[in-house]
Amino acid sequence: MADAAQVNIPANLALTDPVGVAQALIRLPSVSPDPGASQHLLAAMLERLGFEVTHLPFGEGAERTPNFFARLGTGSPHICYAGHTDVVPPGNEADWSHPPYAADIVDGVLYGRGACDMKGGIAAFVSAVARHVATGLGKGSISFLITGDEEGPATYGTVKVLEWMAEHNQIPDYCLVGEPTNPKVLGEMVKVGRRGSLNAHIVVEGTQGHVAYPHRADNPVHRLLAVLAALRGTPLDNGTEYFEPSSLQVTSVDVGNGATNVIPARAEARLNIRFNDLHTGAALKGWVETICRQHAPRSRVEIKISGESFLTSPTQETTALVEAIKQITGRTPKLDTGGGTSDARFISRYCAVSEFGLVGASIHKVDEHTDVADLEMLTRIYQTFLEGAQA
Amino acid sequence: MADAAQVNIPANLALTDPVGVAQALIRLPSVSPDPGASQHLLAAMLERLGFEVTHLPFGEGAERTPNFFARLGTGSPHICYAGHTDVVPPGNEADWSHPPYAADIVDGVLYGRGACDMKGGIAAFVSAVARHVATGLGKGSISFLITGDEEGPATYGTVKVLEWMAEHNQIPDYCLVGEPTNPKVLGEMVKVGRRGSLNAHIVVEGTQGHVAYPHRADNPVHRLLAVLAALRGTPLDNGTEYFEPSSLQVTSVDVGNGATNVIPARAEARLNIRFNDLHTGAALKGWVETICRQHAPRSRVEIKISGESFLTSPTQETTALVEAIKQITGRTPKLDTGGGTSDARFISRYCAVSEFGLVGASIHKVDEHTDVADLEMLTRIYQTFLEGAQA
Ligand SMILES: [Zn+2]
Ligand SMILES: [Zn+2]
Repeated sequence: MADAAQVNIPANLALTDPVGVAQALIRLPSVSPDPGASQHLLAAMLERLGFEVTHLPFGEGAERTPNFFARLGTGSPHICYAGHTDVVPPGNEADWSHPPYAADIVDGVLYGRGACDMKGGIAAFVSAVARHVATGLGKGSISFLITGDEEGPATYGTVKVLEWMAEHNQIPDYCLVGEPTNPKVLGEMVKVGRRGSLNAHIVVEGTQGHVAYPHRADNPVHRLLAVLAALRGTPLDNGTEYFEPSSLQVTSVDVGNGATNVIPARAEARLNIRFNDLHTGAALKGWVETICRQHAPRSRVEIKISGESFLTSPTQETTALVEAIKQITGRTPKLDTGGGTSDARFISRYCAVSEFGLVGASIHKVDEHTDVADLEMLTRIYQTFLEGAQA
Repeated sequence: MADAAQVNIPANLALTDPVGVAQALIRLPSVSPDPGASQHLLAAMLERLGFEVTHLPFGEGAERTPNFFARLGTGSPHICYAGHTDVVPPGNEADWSHPPYAADIVDGVLYGRGACDMKGGIAAFVSAVARHVATGLGKGSISFLITGDEEGPATYGTVKVLEWMAEHNQIPDYCLVGEPTNPKVLGEMVKVGRRGSLNAHIVVEGTQGHVAYPHRADNPVHRLLAVLAALRGTPLDNGTEYFEPSSLQVTSVDVGNGATNVIPARAEARLNIRFNDLHTGAALKGWVETICRQHAPRSRVEIKISGESFLTSPTQETTALVEAIKQITGRTPKLDTGGGTSDARFISRYCAVSEFGLVGASIHKVDEHTDVADLEMLTRIYQTFLEGAQA
């Protein structure tokens, strides 16, 4: 892990320039968990802006995850910006038209791993803060909750930092997560909640036999089909004002029986449920287990709840964010809860949280990129939001 | 392949002794396709009894399959005995308590691969004929339809011999297949038909995507589950006087998707239908294809019909067989159509056919065996049948 001392802010880099800040962050590769250098660069930038940085590495050995909490001022409201410095692997680098860590700008487009997920978003907030403090901090205070592992298992990341923040009285009034929330155009979508996610692995044992004598066997495939039909038989719900209907997807069914005249001894399935706030993970777990017991008494179910659903009721900060987006982009963002999970699910246990960042169309792909114009526009949105929220 | 000249009938072997004949046949290993020696021994025995043997090898190279047709007399009725000299592999020979090709007799039990499926059955018919012709052949004639590949693909076996027999005016009035038809005790079951068998392999193409965005994907697992639910939704029939209800068994479903957050691009299933004479293979094929088209337009189905169902209406020969069984065993056999398929499905296209042989409980297993007493009793049944059928 690199020491803070080893990472220098590039000469001539103005922190008010989100493009330069984003390029500097992209050029320090940080596949999950971030080995540390890109996070130390970010900490150095915040220290230059007057933040007090507390490094909070958690985990041991290969799991060691660098994180930090940084705060400027002590006043109220306390607005926190949350983000991650780690990035997903670039895949085959030869497939990129611009090297993933070069941060090349061509025809107004910045290319690189993390350009929108989410070093570009972090850069925009750093520059927004730099511009904001240049005109005076106002009555409130600002903090950064930064983790080096959001894309990986996330065990030693945001969850642990939040525990530390709670112990040290640093829970903010409102948290803005800078994940890329816009499907196509900057300004179209703010996330005010997320669906929960549950994975189930069902293994049904049967009794092997010859297909010509099914009454002497117990076909586990038929039992599993009955389980899956019961699980998929009734819609989980019809959705709510903010949430799409919950969705159950069977992602794999596996038997691996090559003998066409043999009833196999075992069958298994994997499924994922994305659920809205009409459900809890525990209730869904009980429901899946009951159906398995009913249709396949000789079955085992392993269930992992990777996130509960949550919905943040609108706060004055949400209003300030929406107003800032309208003012800078001319668009009225949809308040949405779709898509995957993010660390916002952990933050929601402590305080109000929304998510807004860049356009996400190219994330996790080859040639991840963002319009340079979007970086400047997002910086102005974040600055306008800070001014509005702390007015 | 061994020549007839290389195979000698053991000295002192009386062809009227089914135990000695069975031992001699078992001691010539003949895993499918029979390399030839055991079949040449059988041909030599029949020649000694006065049969005219026509060797009918079909297929090339590794598929070369020895078969023969043998006939004694030209009169009517022409009764044919059908059987196979090939055997299934012994598996791990160390697991046998008696070597699979030693034909040891211990406590009145003969052990060996093929003891009941079906060198023992063949031996009983050879001895029945030897005893029958010793008292004069009567007005009818007798033939043997022998194949060296019934347990394998059976492509160059009974089907080809039957074609030859049809061309040479050798189709019998009645055929008795000597497969082991009795589940537990000699005399309890005659097969007068068999269910048909159809295998289907269904491949459904979908559109891959992230589980959080199912509307952007097309989950092939869900389409396949709908296909399988439709196929299993209504029973095919309720059975008939001679047949159990037709049965559809899904033998495998395979996706192989290890990523819990990904909707896969493809799913496949394999199923087998055992059907009675209320259906034809072609009609069932059309039914499966229609359901696949309805629920999964982007699917491919491969269907193989490995046998049509058939039912032989009772003939005077069936009556003679049942009477012989009653007389020798004191049992009234059930006229049944259950279980797997046999070469009788091919023969039924040409003439009336029944199946009756030894007890099948140990076939295809380690320590395959038959009671020596059953060999003698089956010989007497076959002889009584010949006398009754040709009276
Ligand atoms: Zn992210
Ligand atoms: Zn057999």
